[in-house]
Amino acid sequence: MSIPTHGLQLRSLISASGELQLSLIEQPVASLQPDEVLLRVEAAPINPSDIGLLFGAADMRSARASGTPARPVISAPVPERAMAAMAGRVGQSLPVGNEGAGTVLAAGDAPAAQALLGRRVAVLGGAMYSQYRSVPASACLLLPPDATAAQGASCFVNPLTALGMVETLRREGHTALVHTAAASNLGQMLNRICQADGVGLVNIVRSPAQVALLRGLGAQHVVDSSAPEFMAALTEAVAATGATLAFDAIGGGRLAGQILQAMEAAIARQATEYSRYGSAVHKQVYIYGGLDTGATEITRSFGMSWGVGGWLMFPFLQRVGAETTARMKQRVADELHTTFASHYTRSVSLAQALSLEAIGVYGPRSTGTKVLIDPSAG
Amino acid sequence: MSIPTHGLQLRSLISASGELQLSLIEQPVASLQPDEVLLRVEAAPINPSDIGLLFGAADMRSARASGTPARPVISAPVPERAMAAMAGRVGQSLPVGNEGAGTVLAAGDAPAAQALLGRRVAVLGGAMYSQYRSVPASACLLLPPDATAAQGASCFVNPLTALGMVETLRREGHTALVHTAAASNLGQMLNRICQADGVGLVNIVRSPAQVALLRGLGAQHVVDSSAPEFMAALTEAVAATGATLAFDAIGGGRLAGQILQAMEAAIARQATEYSRYGSAVHKQVYIYGGLDTGATEITRSFGMSWGVGGWLMFPFLQRVGAETTARMKQRVADELHTTFASHYTRSVSLAQALSLEAIGVYGPRSTGTKVLIDPSAG
Repeated sequence: MSIPTHGLQLRSLISASGELQLSLIEQPVASLQPDEVLLRVEAAPINPSDIGLLFGAADMRSARASGTPARPVISAPVPERAMAAMAGRVGQSLPVGNEGAGTVLAAGDAPAAQALLGRRVAVLGGAMYSQYRSVPASACLLLPPDATAAQGASCFVNPLTALGMVETLRREGHTALVHTAAASNLGQMLNRICQADGVGLVNIVRSPAQVALLRGLGAQHVVDSSAPEFMAALTEAVAATGATLAFDAIGGGRLAGQILQAMEAAIARQATEYSRYGSAVHKQVYIYGGLDTGATEITRSFGMSWGVGGWLMFPFLQRVGAETTARMKQRVADELHTTFASHYTRSVSLAQALSLEAIGVYGPRSTGTKVLIDPSAG
Repeated sequence: MSIPTHGLQLRSLISASGELQLSLIEQPVASLQPDEVLLRVEAAPINPSDIGLLFGAADMRSARASGTPARPVISAPVPERAMAAMAGRVGQSLPVGNEGAGTVLAAGDAPAAQALLGRRVAVLGGAMYSQYRSVPASACLLLPPDATAAQGASCFVNPLTALGMVETLRREGHTALVHTAAASNLGQMLNRICQADGVGLVNIVRSPAQVALLRGLGAQHVVDSSAPEFMAALTEAVAATGATLAFDAIGGGRLAGQILQAMEAAIARQATEYSRYGSAVHKQVYIYGGLDTGATEITRSFGMSWGVGGWLMFPFLQRVGAETTARMKQRVADELHTTFASHYTRSVSLAQALSLEAIGVYGPRSTGTKVLIDPSAG
């Protein structure tokens, strides 16, 4: 394989005047450090967390396309009220793409780097919406020989988040959990992990079709938040599992509070004495996504033993340390074709990703719609 | 002193049909266990936490008075939508009054009980809106000889809550804190503790008069949430102190989220690199009261390292253990006339407490209005 001198990279820039610009830039391939490898990126998923960086607070309904077919440009206005939250990134041309997979084209002199030459690896490294990426060999997960780049593209963000939820449950002394937006790629992984590990799981979804999907995957407790009897059904499922922990991908609206209310109602069934402060059992909701960016509205009708807070996979891995992280990553590699299998709606090139038509597919972050970028595609 | 055979006790009852009834009942004085003492209650404060149990979810604007001058009865309707939250107490005639002070009239045979005979003590024991109370000697805090019952009446709830906040700050690794409804009796104690201990404190109050009050008490950072420049002033004060912890007595509305936003903005001033997940510094708001019982509305504009949750003094004391609790109680006794001095708007008898006029004074839980019940008054 010949070593390229330049490669395309997708960039996201918000200007001080309040315009988002997405474009492709050509940049030189840097020379490798001894412990680095050069990757030809062949598959990188567009996760909700990537979309947050990609679009920022821009109003994508007003997006416009310009540029050329090979170098498309997408522009969109950022509402003035949202510019304060963007202050930290204004004027910076940011690369995007948390994770991906590809083939190692070149390697530094270190044995760990040389061992990966010609092999297919997955990387959690940022800037993966690039034709070529230099990364430390230690950041690579060697894929099984039969794995395609697409199969290995989502080895990290969703699998380690799902495993991190179950690890959090164990560390914080809970025995069952609630998950929202549970029909998602991540939700399906979590469903498989909980079934394998014997952990009680209440899946909250948003339509009868998603109920059917999860039931088809063997999920025992599936509750539809669009149904009129939602709160009663949620309380029953929480009582049946004993869930006192929830991970919420939605964030906005009343759902987090409703989950706490259902937990308290389930616990109160066992109460023998009135306490106006509610049960002493700690009930926790972690918000790990923001599918609804509106305010979180918590009607405090569940006593005083509760918490709501942010949860992110990266800081979690830092807290649990290298050994636990390595164990989790190995499980992902071992169960890549089963527990951690991902499915994609379509694969696009870097240029195709910057089309209004493709943005219309992956932009809404719809559950069950997942797009893959193949930067090696012409 | 002669030992009484019966005494009056204030009771709160919510019926299944949705009516709150407050009344005085006469009940026999129980014979003492060896480790118990019999207290003549001479002062018991009406704290916001007592009002929660006293009124439940009843609509006190529709309260009616009946009964006789010696045995008044207050009735008020509980709105139907609020009855679900009252389910745990329906039909139970509940005694009220978390804490108080009085004189020990009789004591069991145990030396610890005998040692308190004739002395004035403070008790955290519940049911303190009673003429007489039997409590374990170990629940008593011996007051300094020069302390009146009124001076010793509020030894526990506010002092231990304020000390618990500073202890929480130390245990969770924060260095400064924000307090809301800071002009309250509790807020003034916290202000004195933080000044004595050198802990940074941002006082959030709700009027210019309260700003003046706290400044008069030497508070350095006082922010008025009713002022148009509130957010800017709050951010400045948080930046000046480095506060990453808050205790919020209000609960409802947007304030908890605004505090988190101010903390993140203060931290972002030091940021060197953009992260769309916000700073890695954990920001925590504990809600310990519910002056506003409406929904907590959190606009999540402060990254992912945050938490909001309930905090209560009793479970906190259980977590920190007997030794720390004893140390905190001793400090209260030592500093009763200074750090932990309380001031009362008026003192009422048990019968006077059950008048519409008195309820109009203590019912609204206004900052700076605090009423004491003296069950020994005729």
